[in-house]
Amino acid sequence: METIGFIGTGHLGLPIVTNLLKAGYPVKVYNRTREKAAPLEALGAELVDSPAATAVRGGIVLTLVSDDKAVESIADNDFIQALGHGGIHVSLSTISPDTSRALAAHHQKQGVTYVAAPVFARPEAAAAKAGNAVVSGPGAAKERVKPLLEAGFAKNVFDLGEDPGSANVLKLIGNFMIAGAIEMMAEAFTLAEKNGVDPKVAYEMLTTTLFAAPIFRSYGAMVLERNFADSPAFGAALGLKDMNLVLQTATRSHTPMPLAQLVQSRLMTVVARNEKDTDWVALATGAREDAGLKG
Amino acid sequence: METIGFIGTGHLGLPIVTNLLKAGYPVKVYNRTREKAAPLEALGAELVDSPAATAVRGGIVLTLVSDDKAVESIADNDFIQALGHGGIHVSLSTISPDTSRALAAHHQKQGVTYVAAPVFARPEAAAAKAGNAVVSGPGAAKERVKPLLEAGFAKNVFDLGEDPGSANVLKLIGNFMIAGAIEMMAEAFTLAEKNGVDPKVAYEMLTTTLFAAPIFRSYGAMVLERNFADSPAFGAALGLKDMNLVLQTATRSHTPMPLAQLVQSRLMTVVARNEKDTDWVALATGAREDAGLKG
Repeated sequence: METIGFIGTGHLGLPIVTNLLKAGYPVKVYNRTREKAAPLEALGAELVDSPAATAVRGGIVLTLVSDDKAVESIADNDFIQALGHGGIHVSLSTISPDTSRALAAHHQKQGVTYVAAPVFARPEAAAAKAGNAVVSGPGAAKERVKPLLEAGFAKNVFDLGEDPGSANVLKLIGNFMIAGAIEMMAEAFTLAEKNGVDPKVAYEMLTTTLFAAPIFRSYGAMVLERNFADSPAFGAALGLKDMNLVLQTATRSHTPMPLAQLVQSRLMTVVARNEKDTDWVALATGAREDAGLKG
Repeated sequence: METIGFIGTGHLGLPIVTNLLKAGYPVKVYNRTREKAAPLEALGAELVDSPAATAVRGGIVLTLVSDDKAVESIADNDFIQALGHGGIHVSLSTISPDTSRALAAHHQKQGVTYVAAPVFARPEAAAAKAGNAVVSGPGAAKERVKPLLEAGFAKNVFDLGEDPGSANVLKLIGNFMIAGAIEMMAEAFTLAEKNGVDPKVAYEMLTTTLFAAPIFRSYGAMVLERNFADSPAFGAALGLKDMNLVLQTATRSHTPMPLAQLVQSRLMTVVARNEKDTDWVALATGAREDAGLKG
């Protein structure tokens, strides 16, 4: 099997690389903080010292980092030249559609293909290969990349066409809707509690009938339990970054999104209170605290 | 089988009475506009001339009308006395929890039990007995009423306890969450369209994975198709009334709900434009028109 490069071994990168190794792919791994990638060495990954060193000429490198700047700084000339003609850079990060488009044009000049394939999965779902991938970019490159996404984290792969920004647009929309669902349940459960109805009963009724979807079941349980600081899988600072990208994309396209503004504001409060490392589901505390409920 | 009274044969009352008749219950029907109940006569219902005339002493009458005032005006002394000791008034309408509590106390003085059992179902779901019921009130009365709810519209019956207002609280929460889901999809699909992503592709991806719930599938399709005026199943004026009840309940319990305020405002615009008879899903036009999209 061909050697794969992987850059960024955070909460989500670790299970994905683990799955690729289990599937039999040799993987060259780079992480800015080398120690975080150490567990992967024991599983057979080769740790390297620079982004460019993950690349095999004409091969595939996947990147999964925290923001636009991190992807841009990885994809420098050394990196692109190391990938070389026929090489593919698969960007798994949640970044701006415009950044994806600019990166794609920049890669193309040197014969390298850029594919956007942002990850829909929390770490445990990625580990179980129960996540979802949305992918956009040139057709042939997507075909080559698809088995890797399936081996790494994805139960389903959705093709969003040739425009490299499209997959990022859909990823932002998905995260916006998750945040909206959290706010919705936070307001709903607070109204229940303040009017003598056990929020757990409301949760059970609604998430087994009208709202019987994974997002409402899993995030609803977190909203009820309020253990946001225990092993956060997706921190509030990252959630805020994503909502900033939603609003940036909305602003550039002249799309007023009042619900997106509301959830961004909730997340800003969580981060402003220096709880940036708590799970982003903590945005649900806003509605609760606004209503005078504590603990 | 015992004779049942039924008051209010609107979009939802018609299929419910039809189901009760099919199940073999003799049904006495009253509707303010008698002609609307006429199709039920052909199916075997007895049409009567007053709310009190639907009641059999010690029997059960179900009411399904548009608002608090309508229920209050039905449940006058004639009506309660006609039901008499051991009688049960099952209130299927979406009304204020406080109105339910006041009605329950008033009925109890004359030996009549009031049970709140608001309907979660659009007309086609009620017809297919695929709806959901939430029920609150005294235990023995709820046991007697449950088979009727199942025969009439409900796949599931959820017991919310003794407080008659509880079922109404949950019903308001459910409708708030449906409205929130519509706003969420409206903003999301608008962002997609304005950024080169086909909203249908976003809908398919999201509602078959993270948001694979009946509400997102069915209402999402309506948001995409934008045929709000064709055979509205639940008019915008009724939707606005429900969101007013949500905010009234929120205000009385000091529960700030910014998302509820947003969807109420969207519905106010629909009604202000004299589109009160279009389906309440038309609240989705707000995000779209705010972004300059037409048609």
